[in-house]
Amino acid sequence: MWSYIVVSICVTQVLTDKSFSKLISERETLLKNELKMMLGSDLVLSDSEQQANDVIMKLKRRELDYGFRNPQYFNFSKHFFEYKDDIKRSELFQIVKAMPKGAVLHAHDTAIQNQDYVVSLTYWQDLYVCFLEDNILFLFSKEKPNEKCPTQWQLMKDARYSSGNVEKFDAHLKQYFTLVIDDPVQDYDNINAVWSKFQHYFIATSPLFCYKPIWEQYFYDALKAFRNDNVMFVEIRSVLPQLYDIDGNVYDELVTAQSYKKVLDKFLTDYPDFFGAKLIYAPLRSVDVKTVEEYINIARVLKKKLPDFFAGFDLVGQEDLGNPTSEFLMQLNDVSHEFNYFFHAGETNWYGSSSDENLVDAIVLNAKRIGHAFALVKHPLLLEEVKKRNIALEVNVISNVVLKLVEDVRNHPLATFLAQGLPVVISSDDPGLWDAEPLTHDFYVTFVGVASRHADLRLLKKLALNSLYYSTYKNKDKLVHEFDIRWAKFVHNVIRDYA
Amino acid sequence: MWSYIVVSICVTQVLTDKSFSKLISERETLLKNELKMMLGSDLVLSDSEQQANDVIMKLKRRELDYGFRNPQYFNFSKHFFEYKDDIKRSELFQIVKAMPKGAVLHAHDTAIQNQDYVVSLTYWQDLYVCFLEDNILFLFSKEKPNEKCPTQWQLMKDARYSSGNVEKFDAHLKQYFTLVIDDPVQDYDNINAVWSKFQHYFIATSPLFCYKPIWEQYFYDALKAFRNDNVMFVEIRSVLPQLYDIDGNVYDELVTAQSYKKVLDKFLTDYPDFFGAKLIYAPLRSVDVKTVEEYINIARVLKKKLPDFFAGFDLVGQEDLGNPTSEFLMQLNDVSHEFNYFFHAGETNWYGSSSDENLVDAIVLNAKRIGHAFALVKHPLLLEEVKKRNIALEVNVISNVVLKLVEDVRNHPLATFLAQGLPVVISSDDPGLWDAEPLTHDFYVTFVGVASRHADLRLLKKLALNSLYYSTYKNKDKLVHEFDIRWAKFVHNVIRDYA
Repeated sequence: MWSYIVVSICVTQVLTDKSFSKLISERETLLKNELKMMLGSDLVLSDSEQQANDVIMKLKRRELDYGFRNPQYFNFSKHFFEYKDDIKRSELFQIVKAMPKGAVLHAHDTAIQNQDYVVSLTYWQDLYVCFLEDNILFLFSKEKPNEKCPTQWQLMKDARYSSGNVEKFDAHLKQYFTLVIDDPVQDYDNINAVWSKFQHYFIATSPLFCYKPIWEQYFYDALKAFRNDNVMFVEIRSVLPQLYDIDGNVYDELVTAQSYKKVLDKFLTDYPDFFGAKLIYAPLRSVDVKTVEEYINIARVLKKKLPDFFAGFDLVGQEDLGNPTSEFLMQLNDVSHEFNYFFHAGETNWYGSSSDENLVDAIVLNAKRIGHAFALVKHPLLLEEVKKRNIALEVNVISNVVLKLVEDVRNHPLATFLAQGLPVVISSDDPGLWDAEPLTHDFYVTFVGVASRHADLRLLKKLALNSLYYSTYKNKDKLVHEFDIRWAKFVHNVIRDYA
Repeated sequence: MWSYIVVSICVTQVLTDKSFSKLISERETLLKNELKMMLGSDLVLSDSEQQANDVIMKLKRRELDYGFRNPQYFNFSKHFFEYKDDIKRSELFQIVKAMPKGAVLHAHDTAIQNQDYVVSLTYWQDLYVCFLEDNILFLFSKEKPNEKCPTQWQLMKDARYSSGNVEKFDAHLKQYFTLVIDDPVQDYDNINAVWSKFQHYFIATSPLFCYKPIWEQYFYDALKAFRNDNVMFVEIRSVLPQLYDIDGNVYDELVTAQSYKKVLDKFLTDYPDFFGAKLIYAPLRSVDVKTVEEYINIARVLKKKLPDFFAGFDLVGQEDLGNPTSEFLMQLNDVSHEFNYFFHAGETNWYGSSSDENLVDAIVLNAKRIGHAFALVKHPLLLEEVKKRNIALEVNVISNVVLKLVEDVRNHPLATFLAQGLPVVISSDDPGLWDAEPLTHDFYVTFVGVASRHADLRLLKKLALNSLYYSTYKNKDKLVHEFDIRWAKFVHNVIRDYA
């Protein structure tokens, strides 16, 4: 009797144990295989990269685990404006800043610099200003402008120094040059409210930036800012506004593009370690078919006159309010063999709307990359197409927070894109408008706030490599070779300074 | 020469046209095939259903298109507290209310009724109250309780009528019985803040609800509320607290469950058109292994004594703070053949954390359904497993908003789950705490706020059918047959009243 019981117990235990070990192995296999799907998991770290990774993951886990235990202090569940300066004190942020991050493939030319920089431009000579009730007009001119001003045109210098308090005056100016406000949750209470302020910025700054000498200086300094943020190459989107000079001459879009090319050449002479820039012509989408046909003609001229500088075509502006891409489908299809397309698409929360379905148009029009693609996570078939056709997604997390698509970045669809290993590139859209670094903030928020706690240096490296791979830079081997050299140096420095 | 040119133009046009029509067809095919993946797309509507669908879609599109053009007035991008009452005025809401919605499979027993109902319970005889600084204690007793009270125990009746203003007194009471506050965005500024208030509710109301006569009345009235909201069947989660009576007797968990069964039987006699309720024993997860072993023993007793009423086992409480399921993996695995599991898992924003990985434990432990699964969208492989194993997802959108997982419901992963046709059931979690209807608000928000603009009556019907199909109700044929009868009547009424 006893022996029977003992045997019975033993058998039960063995059975149970075996089943439990099977369970554990099933559990671990699932988790492991899933991590193999994650972007970057195909990379194999060298020994020194592994050492740097240990440093980085220790810092990352420390930040995350503190937040997990103290969600009231976790930055990324708050609005970007609340933590943008604080996170600069993070060691990990500094490492990400020092990291070679490859290329910026989605950024708008007149939104790279922050409000301090723009204010500094208002110190240039011959600038006139007209204060409106809720905005500001500028014009460079030798004489008082004839353009309409409901108050009065003043020389900026006079306005500033007669104000009695230059500091206060400049602080007042700054508010026109940024989206940053004290209480974004309250004051940007819907998407149109923040887009409206966004438009105001472009309206206010356009006659400032379109002054040809400023235009060139801005671009030169923007390139410098990218380079300082360890970016090698840039594809810049521009509506290509018409520039003017102090004599009142106005130039066409080609001149605008050519002035960029001229600045770029100068910059490359001054900084030969930079790999250059290309132009994506991206005019406004809220136009009629005829205007799009004109855009296409301009694009043809650009391509012909600046074949090495012109990268392709896009349409910009708030998708929900602008016309959907489908309205121009025939025109865009007719010339799709002529241009690389980099369409904005799916920068919306409206599932099943016309702006949501810009995604399908970008795909069937053979876009090389899609700008934002925020809504793609709700489109399982389009997502498969994106994989099949190897269309890169230009994701701009912070922009999507500021422009009210998502609040807590942990709900950004980027997490899903990364988990599935989609061809993502991280970019910054309009970093100057929210006072972010040209690229570091977006990389850091992606790495710590959005990606899995398990995502490591391989993800960071892959994101940088993707930005090179999916760029239009011709000599990819050269680009990647140079990246590898800088990467090795970065890894070395991380180990030296932190390990 | 001319003829050559004419021919050339014609050929070009033909070529272009053909290519464009191909593009259009590709575009339409992609959109159409993607919609075929959506939950509910396998259903075929009858002629009368199609008529009702036309009514419903007209209303839905009107609401959505108005919001698209006027996002400042779009409800679902705001906090639920801001629109919960307003949307009751929507005709579509009223239709969804009248719609047979099947079963509620994820709701917690003591969080079904709203603050007004709970206040009404404080009018019962023999209730003593003790006001604390930031909470309130109750006890039913014949005499003044001996339990500790830092202020003083008063008969509720005396406290209320000596207050001088009964209305004000009751309004003050109500705040303990709801999560609804004026400024949730400001005052629930992190997830723990709202969970803390949530816990306070359960602490405050426990001695009120655990008075056996109240316990039974509450459940009876909860069943009535579900039935009034056109729910046929309920699976209710309970921690099964120990009940007490006026003589100070305290009863064990089995008695708590039995009292439910008794009430249910009475309810079914009074309302024979209701299809019943089952119990998911769901005690607190923030405990040690030994306690889980005790839970399992209690579950065994429940299963043995109430085989038709007991549905299965779960663990509850904030996942981020509680112990991960993996800590009890061996114990839960040992008895997994004995119980249906309905684990809460992935009710978190912390990607790659222990609470996030509760998802994998729910899967390997063979859960029949997963509670919330909010984080599943970041887990492509686990998501495939869920499909393969046909594990239903109990999604509670409004709960996830109130408990701070997501702000704008359009970012809820449910949109992705629906788009992929995952086995989703919609439930309401704790509707009383945010003053929602037992199920209608969740269905309405899902249909209008989360799902695609194109999602129609087929989605609504499928969600209702899923809740029957994935329930533990035994005679599914009978259940579905009765549902079909009610559905036909509902369709008839929609056509009669709105077409």
